[in-house]
Amino acid sequence: MERITATYFIETPFEPASAAAVLAGEQSSGTFTAVPGETEELKARFAARVESVEFLETVSTPAIPGSESKDNQYHRAIVKVSWSIENFGYNLPVLISSLQGNLYEIRQFTGLKLMDIDIPASYANHFSGPKFGITGCRKLTSVQNRPLIGTIIKPSVGLTPQQTATLVETLAEAGIDFIKDDELLSSTANSPFNERVDEVMNVINRFADKTGKKIMYAFNISGETDEMLARYEKIVNAGGTCAMISINSVGLAGTKKICDQGVLAIHGHRNGWGMLTRHPLLGIDFRAYQKLWRLAGVDQLHVNGIQNKFWESDDSVVASIEACLKPMLGGYEVLPVVSSGQWGGQAPETYRRTKTTDLLYMAGGGILAHPMGPAAGVTALQQAWQAAVDGLDIEGAAKIYPEFAKSVEKFGSK
Amino acid sequence: MERITATYFIETPFEPASAAAVLAGEQSSGTFTAVPGETEELKARFAARVESVEFLETVSTPAIPGSESKDNQYHRAIVKVSWSIENFGYNLPVLISSLQGNLYEIRQFTGLKLMDIDIPASYANHFSGPKFGITGCRKLTSVQNRPLIGTIIKPSVGLTPQQTATLVETLAEAGIDFIKDDELLSSTANSPFNERVDEVMNVINRFADKTGKKIMYAFNISGETDEMLARYEKIVNAGGTCAMISINSVGLAGTKKICDQGVLAIHGHRNGWGMLTRHPLLGIDFRAYQKLWRLAGVDQLHVNGIQNKFWESDDSVVASIEACLKPMLGGYEVLPVVSSGQWGGQAPETYRRTKTTDLLYMAGGGILAHPMGPAAGVTALQQAWQAAVDGLDIEGAAKIYPEFAKSVEKFGSK
Repeated sequence: MERITATYFIETPFEPASAAAVLAGEQSSGTFTAVPGETEELKARFAARVESVEFLETVSTPAIPGSESKDNQYHRAIVKVSWSIENFGYNLPVLISSLQGNLYEIRQFTGLKLMDIDIPASYANHFSGPKFGITGCRKLTSVQNRPLIGTIIKPSVGLTPQQTATLVETLAEAGIDFIKDDELLSSTANSPFNERVDEVMNVINRFADKTGKKIMYAFNISGETDEMLARYEKIVNAGGTCAMISINSVGLAGTKKICDQGVLAIHGHRNGWGMLTRHPLLGIDFRAYQKLWRLAGVDQLHVNGIQNKFWESDDSVVASIEACLKPMLGGYEVLPVVSSGQWGGQAPETYRRTKTTDLLYMAGGGILAHPMGPAAGVTALQQAWQAAVDGLDIEGAAKIYPEFAKSVEKFGSK
Repeated sequence: MERITATYFIETPFEPASAAAVLAGEQSSGTFTAVPGETEELKARFAARVESVEFLETVSTPAIPGSESKDNQYHRAIVKVSWSIENFGYNLPVLISSLQGNLYEIRQFTGLKLMDIDIPASYANHFSGPKFGITGCRKLTSVQNRPLIGTIIKPSVGLTPQQTATLVETLAEAGIDFIKDDELLSSTANSPFNERVDEVMNVINRFADKTGKKIMYAFNISGETDEMLARYEKIVNAGGTCAMISINSVGLAGTKKICDQGVLAIHGHRNGWGMLTRHPLLGIDFRAYQKLWRLAGVDQLHVNGIQNKFWESDDSVVASIEACLKPMLGGYEVLPVVSSGQWGGQAPETYRRTKTTDLLYMAGGGILAHPMGPAAGVTALQQAWQAAVDGLDIEGAAKIYPEFAKSVEKFGSK
């Protein structure tokens, strides 16, 4: 029987191997006293197994509350634990309850983070994954050989559908590839969802008729299941190509139900992610996280950005981009969405470190607040990426490209 | 316009009030530079507002990674922030993206936990909440004036439907009120879901015909949306009264879709919860968390237990029970599920601290591994609770009740 292996970064005042054994027991047997029926045969078939324990270091202060150490020694280790896939089959929520679930409650750990999951080969027969991915999103937007350039409608909440459509028109004229609702907006009294779709798609369809290029607009359909399905349908009928879901807020079952419809590219917004990963020894690492959402079928997934305005380090962002671009089960490609304080100045460093243009590169104020106007803002971003691929740095790019040079003047000092 | 107020426990190297202002801006406006269209009028209508900042203390070490303090001073405070409900209306996922979402990413914080949410009165018109709650679950199980006594089928994974049904028969004869699948089990090759329902309900219905009391069995339906709906239907058709969902693994949209069906009591299992709350300065507190799930409509919600086998303190467990029992919007009652290492010995302390018997009190090994057999195990739990309400301690109860005395002998030393 195939097994699924999970890698954890743990901290414990106990022997790491014995703490790992508690984890394996809790997540496949789990009671404090032996009960009838728990035969050796049954254990051999269903028990989780500690595959390896790699000791890292001992520290004197626990990372999170748990059992106390008598000698102030807390041991950190990488442990691998495996389960027969028979335990949960192809049921993602039960897989999550097994690999995460109650193990965060175990007092023997003073730190526990799920770092990675090895997805077994047979999962390819049960999960079709992203319907569009990188190739599909490029085709839908007619963009090749450079990142898709995108932006977010700001202010996040408050514009009417007409005001939003006017902004979309400005951005369309500016040559944008992708636009999205903010995750804070779904439907408000002054911007009802359906009306926004009508107004926005009216502009986008008109431009598509004229230019042959259809801008991808990610309408935020996050909500309850039936509401999301109705809004999805609305987008399809209006000629849209994309729907956005706040994946953590909606959850796995709801998101997968939408992905399974298969007609629109799904923009996976990871807001709430900081809660799950910001502590180095609690929660889940992006490497593991992105695999679950690729199985669920999201086509685009947020990865933050180099020199972002948030807490995350560049190293972590680079690792996230690499994780998304690494084939899973031979494919399941997902387009990394680079976002947060981006204006083009980060393009050279992003390319230097990732060597890819398979990105959706989102700039907010960086486009609309460009001193020469939004068209120059989009141009500056394209220039920044051309320069990056050509091996130029910011100064080198600013010498050649006047629009980018203006971006540097305005945003470069922040 | 009604506002919704969220309370956060924060830590920051900056002035707490200015860090709170960043939070409010990010979660309602959110870009690093002013953009056209962001008028004063629009801000007044949609901007989040810092309502209060209560300074607590200054520490020298940051709780989680974020901006560094030049003088090693990190200030902790309780801040309240409010949003017009116009921003998200009655859309729970968008509410969550607004009140949690990207704010965990803000580098100005070196700690941030959502502590509580004041649910506005109008939510009562849009969310029907738990369909059964405490009163409904008591009625379904014919239990009054004492906690519902429950247990979990163990081993968690591995028993066949026939073996499960045999255990259920033993427990039924023992006088149990409630039984549940483990969260690690949904459907396996050797225990297909439908077959398990048939076998188990066959026993339960037979006992109900004989005794007039129908044991509530929480079948774990956690899975994808359509699968959950089909399994829900299966339980209904077999005469069952309850379905269990791992709420964090399934997510909000999927869980609410199931709660909305309204025919079965929904057992909300919070596995994965430790990840969201175990760090004192990251994530979400149970007070806020349980309100979201009551809005979604779960009837029963796990709260861990006094002297549990996990990391959580008794104070935290008591606070969780109190949170569940506190009326929300005048009702929305949810039955607290006390679980983890419980055997009856914790009943006196649980009652002393909470003064309630409105609980589903779950004992695993404590029943099936009772030295005098499962019937004595159930009796011992009922005795423990009678003793608790009568003001007896463990020793006093053991003197009167022989079955409970045996429990003390076996489980009291752990």
